Amino acid sequence: MFYTDNKLQYPVRVETPDPLFARALQQAIGGVEGEIRVAMQYFFQACGARGNPKFRDLLMNTAAEELGHIEMLATAVAMNLEGAPLSMKEEMVAGDRAIAAVMGGMNLKNLLSSGLSAMPVDSDGVPFDMSHIYASGNIAADMTANVAAEATGRTLAVRLYNMTGDAGMKDMLQYLIARDTMHQNQWLAALEELGGMTGAFPIPNSHPQAEEKTEFSYAYLGFQADDSAPVPGRWGEGPSIDGKGTFTTGKLHPSDQKPDLGKAKPKSGAQSEQM
Amino acid sequence: MFYTDNKLQYPVRVETPDPLFARALQQAIGGVEGEIRVAMQYFFQACGARGNPKFRDLLMNTAAEELGHIEMLATAVAMNLEGAPLSMKEEMVAGDRAIAAVMGGMNLKNLLSSGLSAMPVDSDGVPFDMSHIYASGNIAADMTANVAAEATGRTLAVRLYNMTGDAGMKDMLQYLIARDTMHQNQWLAALEELGGMTGAFPIPNSHPQAEEKTEFSYAYLGFQADDSAPVPGRWGEGPSIDGKGTFTTGKLHPSDQKPDLGKAKPKSGAQSEQM
Amino acid sequence: MFYTDNKLQYPVRVETPDPLFARALQQAIGGVEGEIRVAMQYFFQACGARGNPKFRDLLMNTAAEELGHIEMLATAVAMNLEGAPLSMKEEMVAGDRAIAAVMGGMNLKNLLSSGLSAMPVDSDGVPFDMSHIYASGNIAADMTANVAAEATGRTLAVRLYNMTGDAGMKDMLQYLIARDTMHQNQWLAALEELGGMTGAFPIPNSHPQAEEKTEFSYAYLGFQADDSAPVPGRWGEGPSIDGKGTFTTGKLHPSDQKPDLGKAKPKSGAQSEQM
Amino acid sequence: MFYTDNKLQYPVRVETPDPLFARALQQAIGGVEGEIRVAMQYFFQACGARGNPKFRDLLMNTAAEELGHIEMLATAVAMNLEGAPLSMKEEMVAGDRAIAAVMGGMNLKNLLSSGLSAMPVDSDGVPFDMSHIYASGNIAADMTANVAAEATGRTLAVRLYNMTGDAGMKDMLQYLIARDTMHQNQWLAALEELGGMTGAFPIPNSHPQAEEKTEFSYAYLGFQADDSAPVPGRWGEGPSIDGKGTFTTGKLHPSDQKPDLGKAKPKSGAQSEQM
Amino acid sequence: MFYTDNKLQYPVRVETPDPLFARALQQAIGGVEGEIRVAMQYFFQACGARGNPKFRDLLMNTAAEELGHIEMLATAVAMNLEGAPLSMKEEMVAGDRAIAAVMGGMNLKNLLSSGLSAMPVDSDGVPFDMSHIYASGNIAADMTANVAAEATGRTLAVRLYNMTGDAGMKDMLQYLIARDTMHQNQWLAALEELGGMTGAFPIPNSHPQAEEKTEFSYAYLGFQADDSAPVPGRWGEGPSIDGKGTFTTGKLHPSDQKPDLGKAKPKSGAQSEQM
Amino acid sequence: MFYTDNKLQYPVRVETPDPLFARALQQAIGGVEGEIRVAMQYFFQACGARGNPKFRDLLMNTAAEELGHIEMLATAVAMNLEGAPLSMKEEMVAGDRAIAAVMGGMNLKNLLSSGLSAMPVDSDGVPFDMSHIYASGNIAADMTANVAAEATGRTLAVRLYNMTGDAGMKDMLQYLIARDTMHQNQWLAALEELGGMTGAFPIPNSHPQAEEKTEFSYAYLGFQADDSAPVPGRWGEGPSIDGKGTFTTGKLHPSDQKPDLGKAKPKSGAQSEQM
Repeated sequence: MFYTDNKLQYPVRVETPDPLFARALQQAIGGVEGEIRVAMQYFFQACGARGNPKFRDLLMNTAAEELGHIEMLATAVAMNLEGAPLSMKEEMVAGDRAIAAVMGGMNLKNLLSSGLSAMPVDSDGVPFDMSHIYASGNIAADMTANVAAEATGRTLAVRLYNMTGDAGMKDMLQYLIARDTMHQNQWLAALEELGGMTGAFPIPNSHPQAEEKTEFSYAYLGFQADDSAPVPGRWGEGPSIDGKGTFTTGKLHPSDQKPDLGKAKPKSGAQSEQM
Repeated sequence: MFYTDNKLQYPVRVETPDPLFARALQQAIGGVEGEIRVAMQYFFQACGARGNPKFRDLLMNTAAEELGHIEMLATAVAMNLEGAPLSMKEEMVAGDRAIAAVMGGMNLKNLLSSGLSAMPVDSDGVPFDMSHIYASGNIAADMTANVAAEATGRTLAVRLYNMTGDAGMKDMLQYLIARDTMHQNQWLAALEELGGMTGAFPIPNSHPQAEEKTEFSYAYLGFQADDSAPVPGRWGEGPSIDGKGTFTTGKLHPSDQKPDLGKAKPKSGAQSEQM
Repeated sequence: MFYTDNKLQYPVRVETPDPLFARALQQAIGGVEGEIRVAMQYFFQACGARGNPKFRDLLMNTAAEELGHIEMLATAVAMNLEGAPLSMKEEMVAGDRAIAAVMGGMNLKNLLSSGLSAMPVDSDGVPFDMSHIYASGNIAADMTANVAAEATGRTLAVRLYNMTGDAGMKDMLQYLIARDTMHQNQWLAALEELGGMTGAFPIPNSHPQAEEKTEFSYAYLGFQADDSAPVPGRWGEGPSIDGKGTFTTGKLHPSDQKPDLGKAKPKSGAQSEQM
Repeated sequence: MFYTDNKLQYPVRVETPDPLFARALQQAIGGVEGEIRVAMQYFFQACGARGNPKFRDLLMNTAAEELGHIEMLATAVAMNLEGAPLSMKEEMVAGDRAIAAVMGGMNLKNLLSSGLSAMPVDSDGVPFDMSHIYASGNIAADMTANVAAEATGRTLAVRLYNMTGDAGMKDMLQYLIARDTMHQNQWLAALEELGGMTGAFPIPNSHPQAEEKTEFSYAYLGFQADDSAPVPGRWGEGPSIDGKGTFTTGKLHPSDQKPDLGKAKPKSGAQSEQM
Repeated sequence: MFYTDNKLQYPVRVETPDPLFARALQQAIGGVEGEIRVAMQYFFQACGARGNPKFRDLLMNTAAEELGHIEMLATAVAMNLEGAPLSMKEEMVAGDRAIAAVMGGMNLKNLLSSGLSAMPVDSDGVPFDMSHIYASGNIAADMTANVAAEATGRTLAVRLYNMTGDAGMKDMLQYLIARDTMHQNQWLAALEELGGMTGAFPIPNSHPQAEEKTEFSYAYLGFQADDSAPVPGRWGEGPSIDGKGTFTTGKLHPSDQKPDLGKAKPKSGAQSEQM
Repeated sequence: MFYTDNKLQYPVRVETPDPLFARALQQAIGGVEGEIRVAMQYFFQACGARGNPKFRDLLMNTAAEELGHIEMLATAVAMNLEGAPLSMKEEMVAGDRAIAAVMGGMNLKNLLSSGLSAMPVDSDGVPFDMSHIYASGNIAADMTANVAAEATGRTLAVRLYNMTGDAGMKDMLQYLIARDTMHQNQWLAALEELGGMTGAFPIPNSHPQAEEKTEFSYAYLGFQADDSAPVPGRWGEGPSIDGKGTFTTGKLHPSDQKPDLGKAKPKSGAQSEQM
């Protein structure tokens, strides 16, 4: 279960409120690379973790941390919206077209739906969809999803850091970037505990590889229209990364099977010509 | 640009049509771990690739392969729907409740919307949402997303393989599982070309780490309600996986800042008590 | 504006309640081929109609009709849910696994969320999404969308008719099928008033065709991997349907341009190798 | 910020695993009446609360409780999935069609995507969409949304309680139903603190009612096609509930304005007949 | 069934077209607080109403009114888009960056998809999702959802009223605000008919409270990390609002149960380390 | 299966990068009228085609073409984003509010999520939803959906053409507009092969019309509140377009049935007053 203490994990300061930056920060809350995603992803992975219980604890502990990140960012969004205009009338009196630009550049829902507060939406106002919570029941697959989430998450945080000139916001983002550095390393460390490249892969490692079509398991195949070889690289020669095969390079020869479903069934709602 | 030849990449055979397995296969088409996802993800990553052009070529080549996988699976879904009942009336005459169970266990849209054909939906009839196409503009982040996609993809293929007893379907899945083995390795190989653990991480590697709050960059922090240390593991001690720091274990001390947004603005639609 | 009279447009009778058929009927309410879609599509097309006002009136009049169809179908769903089990306990006492099959075959939300009533969802429980309301501001494009909506709508109604053996439901569907026949004809008649094949097409007819690349305007081009000619048909020879050109058959020669976005910008969040 | 202790708020026991009940429980996790919704709704309302800070604290405290409810339910889903079949092959050997009914009645994603664990989806496999987080910036409007959420939430919990015969599940639901009783009362109590019916309504109470068209503010208007009076009730006579007017009953007389947008603009993509 | 008369319920005038205000008005059409939501919510609640038929009539009558509100707002959106620029070229000739600001501040779909007309989307272009139609089969729960819908609806209308300086738009909004006043009161009056606070609550009132864990039914529990008491208020002492208990304040003691799902099943797609 | 050659189908040039036009072009990629939609729609229609195999080939051939269109447009989006600002700081130094207008007018996800590349979203940042892939299993219904898709698609392309002043972009759009001209004609030609107006309609033509309520099959019915005749037109008199009836004009007389669901079942979660 969970507890709270009404304190922010790290200070949130805004020197100059900027409604457009509030919109940008929404991506870090409700974007697919954002904090709702990681908080809920670690939460559900924890709830479904089987086997060694330490992974459950690790995941739920980090979920608690990420909930605090949402709280920080939501506070930052509201602080940046302090300066947002509520009325076009004021603008017309002032003859200042810039206010229209500011209002036009906002997520209007931040004004109309939430009254100058944060929402669980991305920087274009699209609500977060929980289908992005990857919790596969396979602990190694989950770790790869977490590395990916933190890689795109830190990329987003860096972009936000580069976008703003506000010292308070830069300070907060320096904290969040550092935590993303840790979390990338943390999930990679968990993968290492799970056997690393040669022990964990191919995921799931519980499937007997003898039952797959092994002639295709380490073959880099070309689908080039002119039959040329596909672009060379590490993926086409040398030992495979999982240590269980050797990369080859080739070309796929299609089967002779032309897909043909035959006629439609009567009463299936097709045209009579299809039957 | 793209070309087609009306042939299946690998043979698709169904010995005994099974409408419920058709439903399960839909997950491999329109689920978040499915083939639309990887085809479109590699396609959009290719379109946005910057820097060494070999990554664009690698990505688009594999996108072409995955399009063929959708085609195979869509054919397999239609073949498994051959035996689906169209009418409850037949059932009532036959007094066979099992037909109701079959029909109730189907995605009804596979019958009502597509006339016994495949759809871009998952195994519960939910349409695929293109927000799952991760194409970040950071080539290393993209590779982590691709490893994750293939890890969950192979897990799904193995579950489908374990679910069915149909020899034709097992044969097709053995091919797809093998390709997922290759693709996991392929994207890990691309990460290796990009510098591997110590060269590519933390992603993005273009951000100067001196600008992050480095005291938090490699610290495994506990959020345990009883102040106990979080569960120990590789993530809490030793050199960090990216080779740029040393893991420590600690506890976060919250800031003293209590979030307080103050009063609401007049005319912002709040209650008068909030102003 | 709108008025109501608390009467059903056409009688709705259910002889033998069938919870699985209730689920199937949901497709006709909240599926993409369903009645919410046409009601709201005609409504919004009417609201945006410009030019001859008779099209607005035609559209809004039919929107009113379709609202009544939703009402009929919602009543039919509730009537079919009369027999739905509320409890697995009863089943266990009775030792009757068939009840589990019925409950498993339902949209559970019809029980859990709406208390045995209809919902604006499809036959797999997916809520209707209003992005399916096509109202383009081009009256002829709208008519083509309406023909398509009624074509898939009547196909769905026929499938439902073929699925059920209930005399009351068959009677109701015979009415709805007849209305779909009319509406297909109605929108085709509106297209005829707008100039028909040679007057309305290509849509929009207000764009000067001299400004398009006319060598591509009536050419049926092959994208066959083996350079073979694409499959012949009416689309490859003879006068074009819009009467403004002659169909030819050929092959597209790609441009020489290889897509290359060059290097990533500094501070854009890419890897340093991409810059 | 948030803390966790890896303990369940209330015991979760399942005597007889039931995959279909696991599916039903998903509605209480990821349905619109479910626990993700209330946890996140109270969380975001807290983050945007302005004025008296006690409402922020009340909201965040309850958000912490609801996070623990998700955890309980996710555990219950996984426990109920213990008995789920993984393979149709077993079924064929056993000749037991009932296994097909069980598998057909599940959310297949609970097997294929999450490996027999809970997901943030509803009972028909539809992912939770965060647009359901109502956090309006108006504290009284938020309280009404919370009463509604707990009213539908307790209704759902009662339906689940009536559905299952499992003593462990019944015990857990008796706890959750009790908490929903409290939360309905809690938000109604908050509304009372905000002035109750006559102080808080009409929401927002900060808008000067003199600026609304007061002749329509307390008039119950009929839209009956036969001009009959609408159905009588408390809403049509006596003092208004907000104490600021008197209910009347009447009929709306439409304006004389026929909506007419005139001609389409050139180059707006309309047909030439519309211009 | 429904009828229409091609007249607007109340006059819609726009003195100075404003494309940004058109975007804002979209929230009142396709936002979660908007008119599609209430029209369809009352419609589906009516279709599922059981018991005293007067509630069905009340709901459907008001659904008819709300359909007319959508029509008014759609007309207002189109009128405000009259002045929208169609071309950036014009802007470049004029050297007027303000046109770019206007175009950038629009929902571009209002131009590109609907040809300067309204769409069923919110102010950020997100389509309305019908999962927001709360129709629970419990008439009192429905009324609470309706009070919430009208509370957020009137809040939105007030924000739009405060945003615009256009006399025509202000007049229309004064009408809509008045109707929202009435509808808040109307649904509260319906709740009063259903027994009011002490008769209708806790919802559903048909569940025997003796079967809930009554020690938790009226207890305000703290989840404060430092074990401090949660913030005091009406919710923590005195008689409960439903008249059936007395509020107490306390602290939840977690169960001793640590969630532990044990090992993964063989063939479930987990890693071998999890089995 | 599919092949690629890393060449663009037609040259893509941008003379003056324009981030706002990049946003507009997103509609042609991920909008409901866009290229993902037609590519995937033709793909899935091909996969489900039954009867004469030439329709499968025609559809898959055109799917291959459309995939190349996505590639062209994605390249165009990235090229137009070349000039996009990454930082508000620069703007503040320069005192140039116009940069804020540009950034505010962008889809921020094109910067924050994809690093100045295209995404599968529309012009307001909303991801494409695959429920828009209409593939009905009825080949004639599919053709009507395709005509509609190309009609709205060409309307969109014309709007984009009219919006931009960039010679490179105009050239590319002249190509795409021409292809939309062809595709409208192509699908109309396919309808002609399927029997045209009198052979293919009403769709599905396999349903015996004698089983529909023929008195409603060609009747144009009024739902006018004042009982006036609905607006006259081709749809109300003369032979029906499908050649199987004669249009009449009339008025619907509602049934006498008042919808009444009776009482709620005990234990269904309703209020006790409903039982």
